[in-house]
Amino acid sequence: MLISSTSNPSIKHIRSLRQRKERERSGLFCIEGTRLVAEAIQTGAAIETLIVAPALLTSPFAQELIRSQEQQGTHCIEVTPAVFESISAREGPQGIAAVVRQHWQPLASIHLGSELAWVALAAIQDPGNLGAILRVSDAVGGAGVILLDHCTDPYDPTAVRGSMGAIFSQQLVRASFAEFARWQQQHSYTVIGTSDAAPIDYQALTYHPPLVLLMGSERIGLTAEQQAVCANMVRIPMVGRSDSLNLAVATGIVLYEIFNQHRRSMAS
Amino acid sequence: MLISSTSNPSIKHIRSLRQRKERERSGLFCIEGTRLVAEAIQTGAAIETLIVAPALLTSPFAQELIRSQEQQGTHCIEVTPAVFESISAREGPQGIAAVVRQHWQPLASIHLGSELAWVALAAIQDPGNLGAILRVSDAVGGAGVILLDHCTDPYDPTAVRGSMGAIFSQQLVRASFAEFARWQQQHSYTVIGTSDAAPIDYQALTYHPPLVLLMGSERIGLTAEQQAVCANMVRIPMVGRSDSLNLAVATGIVLYEIFNQHRRSMAS
Repeated sequence: MLISSTSNPSIKHIRSLRQRKERERSGLFCIEGTRLVAEAIQTGAAIETLIVAPALLTSPFAQELIRSQEQQGTHCIEVTPAVFESISAREGPQGIAAVVRQHWQPLASIHLGSELAWVALAAIQDPGNLGAILRVSDAVGGAGVILLDHCTDPYDPTAVRGSMGAIFSQQLVRASFAEFARWQQQHSYTVIGTSDAAPIDYQALTYHPPLVLLMGSERIGLTAEQQAVCANMVRIPMVGRSDSLNLAVATGIVLYEIFNQHRRSMAS
Repeated sequence: MLISSTSNPSIKHIRSLRQRKERERSGLFCIEGTRLVAEAIQTGAAIETLIVAPALLTSPFAQELIRSQEQQGTHCIEVTPAVFESISAREGPQGIAAVVRQHWQPLASIHLGSELAWVALAAIQDPGNLGAILRVSDAVGGAGVILLDHCTDPYDPTAVRGSMGAIFSQQLVRASFAEFARWQQQHSYTVIGTSDAAPIDYQALTYHPPLVLLMGSERIGLTAEQQAVCANMVRIPMVGRSDSLNLAVATGIVLYEIFNQHRRSMAS
């Protein structure tokens, strides 16, 4: 059956997942586009519903993906282009979307092992930054992100899109800072923080993975209490007029330094 | 005189600067917040009009800024909080904004000298990325950005906000790729490009500033034609599932490598 009404209850529910409140209530989120849906399937994400607009779906790869999911019993709904566009945030939608179950790990279950690092984020506000951080964490062999206190939602459409699929490969944890501090202390994990006023140049420190890179919020950076759990505070040197970098850029620069040191130590 | 109507012609014109078309037509753009307005004044930007909502303006620093600008003859208009909110994109507006003249440099006037680098961007689409790139270019001592072909507008409110003031310290150039290629050839400037398929690890190359770092668009990276002007193509290694990074993050990682090598060569 082809759904042709944008006020169909299933379609209204899918649209409501744009709102964080509804995502939190249902534990679901929505993704769109062949690449993201394929990544969700390949990484074993829990797909609740596939949404297909056959009239828009021109990619043979996407058509095969749908066929194979239908055979495996995934719930699929077919919609008209107008209905698809009502749930889509893209120009030129590809006619494939999915409602997927969120996947959170409890902090207590996290044990540092062979990964390079985790990124802990204190009250990050921008979903685009969060998506870019998930992507760079994936790139260096990071395990995932720990979202402290009131952070933006990694399942926000902007964060999901910005992650370019890393939303599925990276682990997600949320905790209060107090819980994080207890967890760190209990296991004696190394936490590295950043600040423009830190005494050590980020390139002068020898990093010993696995570690946790703690990044402050866009507005205020790390508080004194947050800095107190850090084994070391490092500074990214800057010679211009500004005293800070975009949070995702700063996270990428420090993660790549940790990664580059690790690559050199593996090679030697 | 206090403007209390949101449909006042001056106010309507200020609001119209949210649209690129109107920014291009007038050569103006709008900034808001004490920090950005102060940065515009300190860097000598051409301020056409200061907009002040006295009832919202609580910061003594901002009040002093306005007083001093009024004394120097800068055109100031006073508005009610409701009018200010109609032009503001922020929650909790600070009651200070400015209409500023755009400042573009012709490519022909650009001669590489003592700066570390320029960043050339091929058809970049995301204003948030552009703002973050301006900010990291400022941080490493870069001169500015060269926007090739159809790029997003650096004077877009999202780019301006994301630049955290670097919109005023960085030089802005726009040119077609053909003009850029001619300019590069004429002066024999070194252009470095990036691609996930490039043969050289970005850390294995010795960079010789000043140079131009050419970054491809978010969607397609650098075309074969664009790669052909590059003296070297470098690769940022990635070990995760993804084959690319956020454009601003990637730009930051390569710029910091160039900057770090330069710092080491200065120190030795």
